[in-house]
Amino acid sequence: MSLPATVVTPPLVDQVDIVIPTIRSLDFLEQWRPFFQPYHLIIVQDGDPSIKIRVPEGYDYELYNRNDIDRILGPKSSCISFKDGACRCFGFLVSKKKYIFTIDDDCFVAKDPSGQEINALAQHIHNLVTPSTPFFFNTLYDPYREGADFVRGYPFSLREGVTTAISHGLWLNVPDYDAPTQLVKPRERNTRYVDAVMTIPKGTLFPMCAMNLAFDRELIGPAMYFGLMGDGQPIGRYDDMWAGWCAKVTCDHLGIGVKTGLPYLSHSKASNPFVNLKKEYKGLFWQEDLIPFFQNVTLPKECTTAQKCYIELSKLVKEKLVAIDPYFEKLSDAMVTWIDAWNELNPSTNGAATVKVQPSKPK
Amino acid sequence: MSLPATVVTPPLVDQVDIVIPTIRSLDFLEQWRPFFQPYHLIIVQDGDPSIKIRVPEGYDYELYNRNDIDRILGPKSSCISFKDGACRCFGFLVSKKKYIFTIDDDCFVAKDPSGQEINALAQHIHNLVTPSTPFFFNTLYDPYREGADFVRGYPFSLREGVTTAISHGLWLNVPDYDAPTQLVKPRERNTRYVDAVMTIPKGTLFPMCAMNLAFDRELIGPAMYFGLMGDGQPIGRYDDMWAGWCAKVTCDHLGIGVKTGLPYLSHSKASNPFVNLKKEYKGLFWQEDLIPFFQNVTLPKECTTAQKCYIELSKLVKEKLVAIDPYFEKLSDAMVTWIDAWNELNPSTNGAATVKVQPSKPK
Repeated sequence: MSLPATVVTPPLVDQVDIVIPTIRSLDFLEQWRPFFQPYHLIIVQDGDPSIKIRVPEGYDYELYNRNDIDRILGPKSSCISFKDGACRCFGFLVSKKKYIFTIDDDCFVAKDPSGQEINALAQHIHNLVTPSTPFFFNTLYDPYREGADFVRGYPFSLREGVTTAISHGLWLNVPDYDAPTQLVKPRERNTRYVDAVMTIPKGTLFPMCAMNLAFDRELIGPAMYFGLMGDGQPIGRYDDMWAGWCAKVTCDHLGIGVKTGLPYLSHSKASNPFVNLKKEYKGLFWQEDLIPFFQNVTLPKECTTAQKCYIELSKLVKEKLVAIDPYFEKLSDAMVTWIDAWNELNPSTNGAATVKVQPSKPK
Repeated sequence: MSLPATVVTPPLVDQVDIVIPTIRSLDFLEQWRPFFQPYHLIIVQDGDPSIKIRVPEGYDYELYNRNDIDRILGPKSSCISFKDGACRCFGFLVSKKKYIFTIDDDCFVAKDPSGQEINALAQHIHNLVTPSTPFFFNTLYDPYREGADFVRGYPFSLREGVTTAISHGLWLNVPDYDAPTQLVKPRERNTRYVDAVMTIPKGTLFPMCAMNLAFDRELIGPAMYFGLMGDGQPIGRYDDMWAGWCAKVTCDHLGIGVKTGLPYLSHSKASNPFVNLKKEYKGLFWQEDLIPFFQNVTLPKECTTAQKCYIELSKLVKEKLVAIDPYFEKLSDAMVTWIDAWNELNPSTNGAATVKVQPSKPK
C-alpha cells in the first residue's frame, strides 16, 4: 500500500539542524510541530543558565547554556556573546550537519494568500538545493522554479547557475525595522506576500536578518559569526547584519550564491523601540563607514575557503576599522578566536575525527 | 460639484508620449482606451509605407513611416532599423516629452489577483517619479511603497535614493523567452503575479525587454538606441537587449536608477520560434562576449550626460567588439549617427529652439 497523498516526506531530515537562541519558553514550537518535529534542534540558552527552558514534548534536541559554552570552548568562549541573540552562532559551531535553519522564538507559521500554512523550512531547503544566479539579473525571478525560466537575453553560459550558500526568508506582520523606523511607524505591519525568490547579485550588499535564515554550513558556516554584542559590548542588534556583510563578501569571492524572498513566517512581536535604540545607537553611525568598507573589500585569490576569507577579513577589520572605534580591535580578535574554535570543533576532512561535544541535554 | 470618486485624473498627461512600433492595425488600443486615450501617441510604422495603419477613433497621435524617417533624418536615417521593431527608437528621437512609455501591439490589459484591470502606464509613472536604491538591497522590495520601508541595517545616508531613469514592466501569459526556450517549452505561460517593484543594483546587468517599458527621456533617452537590426543586418531581436546593456551601464555611471517588476500586462502571442531562431542565431553567440564587455565597461568622469556616455561607449564598441564581427564597426558608427540625430532634433537647452518635425499624420 502506498502512502496517502497528504503525507509528505520531510526533506533532508538527516542533514539539517534547527538552531534557536532563547531565554524563555519554546512554546512557539507547538505551532511548528508539523514542520519541525522530524528535525533535530540545537537550542542556545542565553542569560542565566540556572533557568530551565521548557521545550515542547516530542522534540529531539540538544541544549547549551552559558556554562556549557564556557566548558566546551574554554577561554575561546569569549568570542560568543552573552545576553544577546548573537549567541546563536554557538549552535552553528557545534552542529555537525550540512545545513542550518535558524529562527527566532517569536516567529510563527504564516499563511500564503490561498490560506495554506507555509512550510518555511521546506522552502529554505528548496532554495538551498537549487542554484543561484549572482552574475546576471533574471527579470522573471527564480528561473529554476516550476513554470519559470531564463528570459530572452540571459546568457546561456550563465544558466547553470552556482551553488547556493544562503537562503534569507522574510516576515509578515511585524517587519524587521530599526528603532528609528519603529518609533516613526509604530503601527506599520507587513501584509504583502511577494511570491518570489531571487538571487542577490554579486557585488551587492543586503541587510541579513537572522529571524528566518538558512545556510549551507559546510560552505559558509565559518563566515556566519555573529560578532560581539550585548553584555559588556557597546552595541547590539547588529549581530546578523555583521554576519550578513561578512558572509556576502565571502560568497561573492567564492562564487557561491545568496537568495532572498520566500519563505515568509509571521513575526509576532515588535520589540521595544527605546531599548532597541540604546542597543543600535552606535551601529546607526558605524554602518555608514562599515558599508563602504565592505563594498570595497577584495580578498586575495588564495582565500579558497570561508575560513581563509574570514581570517583575511579579520585582518582588514583591524587595519581599516579601528579608526572608527577601538571596539573593532576586539571584534577583529574575536573573529580570529571564532575561526580557531570552528577549526577545533570542525577539523577539516583530512582524516581528523569530528570533535564531539556534550550538551546539557544530550541528543 | 466635485468629480465623482471613480474619475481618476491620468497622471502627467502633458509629460508622457506613448511610442508604438507597428506594421499592422492598432486595434489593441481599443482595450487600453480607459488608460491611454488621454495621452499622445507616437506611432512608428515599420515596413511598406504605403500600407495604411488603422488607429482607433479618438486617439491623439502622430505617425511616422519610412518615408517620413528618411525625409526627417536625411542620410542619418541609416541609423534607424527597417523591418524590425528596433525602428521604435525613432519615436524616442522625435518626442519632446520628458517620459516615454513604449509597448508592443500584441500586449493587452492584464488583471491583478483581485481581478482589477492593471493601469500599466500609471504604475510606470509611479515607478519613474519615486526614487531608486541601486547602492544597497532592500529585502522588503520597494521602500517607497505604501506600507513598506527600509529594513533594519539599511544605511540611513542611502535612504534618500536616486532619481529613477527606467521602469521595466513584466508580462503575464506569454513570457519573453528566446527561440531555444520557446522551442523547448512551447506551452509555458506565466501565471505568477509577483507584487513587487525593485531596483536593479548598480553593477548588475539585466535583459531589458521593450514590450512594456518606460523611461525618463531627458535623462536616459540618448542611450535608448535600438541598434541596427532586421533588413540588411545579420541579427534581430537584440534591439532592446542592446539598448538595455548600454542604458544600464550609463545609468550606473550617472548614478541614476533602473527598476523592474510591476506593472504586468498580458502578452498575447508567442512569435514563431523558428523565425526567431534565425534572427537571434548570431546573438546567442555574441552575447557571451558582449556581457563581459559591458560588465567591464568603465566610463570616464567627464561623461556627465547620457550623450557623452554613449559617444564613449561607441568608441569602446569599435575598439573591443569588432574582433567578434565586422558588424560592430557598422554598429559603432550608427551609435554616433544616432547621437548626431538626437542632438539635431533635441538641441540642448542653451537657448537653441526645439526642432519641430512633421509626421505623416500631424498632431
